[in-house]
Amino acid sequence: MDSLVDKLKRTKATAITLGNLSDGEKRRALEAIADAVAKDKQAAQEANRRDVDAARAASRSAAYLNRLTLTDKVFDLMVEQIRHVATLPDPVGVILERRMLPNGIELEKRTVPIGVIGIIYESRPNVTTDVVALSLRSGNAVVLRGSSSALNSNRVLVASIHRGLEQAGVPKEAVLFLDAADREVVNDIVQQDAYVDVIIPRGGYELVKKVQAVSRIPVLYHAAGGARIYVDESADLKQATTICVNAKTTRPAVCNSLDTVVVHEAVAATFLPKLVAALSPFQVTVYGDERARQIISAEKATDELYATEFMGLSLSVKVVSGVEEAVAFIGRFTKRHSEGIVAKDRATINYFVGNIDAAAVFVNCSTRFHDGGEFGLGAEMGIATGKLHARGPVGLKELTTYQWVAYGDGQIRT
Amino acid sequence: MDSLVDKLKRTKATAITLGNLSDGEKRRALEAIADAVAKDKQAAQEANRRDVDAARAASRSAAYLNRLTLTDKVFDLMVEQIRHVATLPDPVGVILERRMLPNGIELEKRTVPIGVIGIIYESRPNVTTDVVALSLRSGNAVVLRGSSSALNSNRVLVASIHRGLEQAGVPKEAVLFLDAADREVVNDIVQQDAYVDVIIPRGGYELVKKVQAVSRIPVLYHAAGGARIYVDESADLKQATTICVNAKTTRPAVCNSLDTVVVHEAVAATFLPKLVAALSPFQVTVYGDERARQIISAEKATDELYATEFMGLSLSVKVVSGVEEAVAFIGRFTKRHSEGIVAKDRATINYFVGNIDAAAVFVNCSTRFHDGGEFGLGAEMGIATGKLHARGPVGLKELTTYQWVAYGDGQIRT
Repeated sequence: MDSLVDKLKRTKATAITLGNLSDGEKRRALEAIADAVAKDKQAAQEANRRDVDAARAASRSAAYLNRLTLTDKVFDLMVEQIRHVATLPDPVGVILERRMLPNGIELEKRTVPIGVIGIIYESRPNVTTDVVALSLRSGNAVVLRGSSSALNSNRVLVASIHRGLEQAGVPKEAVLFLDAADREVVNDIVQQDAYVDVIIPRGGYELVKKVQAVSRIPVLYHAAGGARIYVDESADLKQATTICVNAKTTRPAVCNSLDTVVVHEAVAATFLPKLVAALSPFQVTVYGDERARQIISAEKATDELYATEFMGLSLSVKVVSGVEEAVAFIGRFTKRHSEGIVAKDRATINYFVGNIDAAAVFVNCSTRFHDGGEFGLGAEMGIATGKLHARGPVGLKELTTYQWVAYGDGQIRT
Repeated sequence: MDSLVDKLKRTKATAITLGNLSDGEKRRALEAIADAVAKDKQAAQEANRRDVDAARAASRSAAYLNRLTLTDKVFDLMVEQIRHVATLPDPVGVILERRMLPNGIELEKRTVPIGVIGIIYESRPNVTTDVVALSLRSGNAVVLRGSSSALNSNRVLVASIHRGLEQAGVPKEAVLFLDAADREVVNDIVQQDAYVDVIIPRGGYELVKKVQAVSRIPVLYHAAGGARIYVDESADLKQATTICVNAKTTRPAVCNSLDTVVVHEAVAATFLPKLVAALSPFQVTVYGDERARQIISAEKATDELYATEFMGLSLSVKVVSGVEEAVAFIGRFTKRHSEGIVAKDRATINYFVGNIDAAAVFVNCSTRFHDGGEFGLGAEMGIATGKLHARGPVGLKELTTYQWVAYGDGQIRT
């Protein structure tokens, strides 16, 4: 049997080929993959039923089973998403800069694929087709390490993907699926910096933190999420209420949902009761500091709670003396993912935006918009909160790097 | 005494302040630093003499003493470089993208400083002012860990820098100099990912490799350099000779100098004797494969030699059947730093550029141009060969990241 390194070498060897595919070739490869996946729907769903049965036998939660199941709707959306990614603009070969140097050299800085993307992901089998589509559209080879709980589903999906690649004349080694049952392979992959250029973990934070702790390869993702929204004294309080309710209650388990409302003391007495009333249909548990608890009925907030990404229907509240204290408070607890402000005063907004260090700042709108699709990027691998390369949504552009090319006619350096 | 973490915390706390300095404030801070450094020239040179004396007593090489010595010329250039960086365009606050989303949100993607840059560097004391100027110009705080061999020089330079910062009203904690004698502090710094956002090692490859192996913080730099140039059958052989001699013999110790000439078999018999003749005044040791040695007198080349970055007056030669073999050969030995081609045939050039995976590719010009100054970027921290964030020269732009800001008027996600 081939070793992991043998397999990775073959995948790495396809990267240059992929990087040279034209826009049309890449689009056709994605279409061929979508066709092949669609054709194998029955086989994929049968395999998926075996995965779901095993997970049920292992007493997995309803939410877990739900994420794992390839319903007709999920399956069809999955195929549709491959076709959607095919329609997005080719991010490769874009000239970022072009300049004529004084010595006559024409210097170009142009986008190229990163090379080999390593994806380590958990149960959802639709992630398989999603990340393959994004990686190939951006000219990258991809190494997939899926969850053992979705192994049967993923095997069928990858077989379809490989058939699609073959039909499109693209080497099937461009998509390497590591079909290993043992968990150790994750530790092995992240050491292979000669063959894998970036690791993108997709799954729970435990997985992400583990990968970040051991990886020798740069990792793009966020190990924590959640948001705070500061409601200034200049805010339209009705707007602030609507935004906070939206940010808290629509999909509270996702990474851009609201954890803490930070409110200016001058409007706390008016705003907080409105907010609590608007949240009441959603059965949100509210935690407040002393000043908040003089206004509304709330559990006692602690620093630990302010640091918590709830991923559920809880919300903490903090009363502050103004935007400066709000910024200092958010600075202590931010996950550098999504932070928001509701205010009308321009100077306050500018101060907030200039002093908050986060991937995205939302002014008078919901933090729930932090998403590659909502940002108009078409699709994304996820949100990154590191400072280098990609910050916020990791879309097709973020799956490219660049190369300098200097065109001369004999220039030498003196 | 303060712990390392206490110091780093205070430096991190200045990062937001620095990020909000205006173009003019940053320029004035650099001018004030240049003035303060210039004023302390005598003290710096006295301290430097103590460092040089100690290095001489430790029997350091002439090259080492040369790099360590702050001559009048080196000192004046150092001050001039601070003033030069002050004149470069402010890289912060540049709008990279601005789009109106269908829901009316105005989305901006704009450059912000990275935050805290950690520099770990070796003997040259002029690196101290150089990296401080680049970091501050791009709105970053900086943590300096210089070599103990330049400790006296660096202490004086940093004292001048701090006086300049104070005169400009910028918190002096923005430049943290770790004045520790023990080497362990390097290991400590690179674990502090809560306070330092990127590590840039500047020095020998042993240092760079050590830092990359242990750092929890992303590292920007190259751990190996060197270049190959392919001379095609369509090349102007006189031009090829001039370019290869230039790439090999002007500063052979630097990272963009030539290690291997890869030559098309159809022109090898004409080209190689010309090349050897042109190199003869420079006393270059030439290694060749069997086919090259049938044409010129050369030592025997090996794969190990082809993989070697000589950093001196040695050169290896490989004869190939054409551009495809040249690309495959370079693919085996490239350090992904600088690669070149001399050719007239457009298809050959395009094939080469499209199939070489390196930070910069040089077509009909010397690889010695791989440099931020030569590329028109004004100045650089060094060259990076990783795939993410920065590839090639790390200039002011590469010392920034970006932040998304969404300006709405009450939008919520449905």
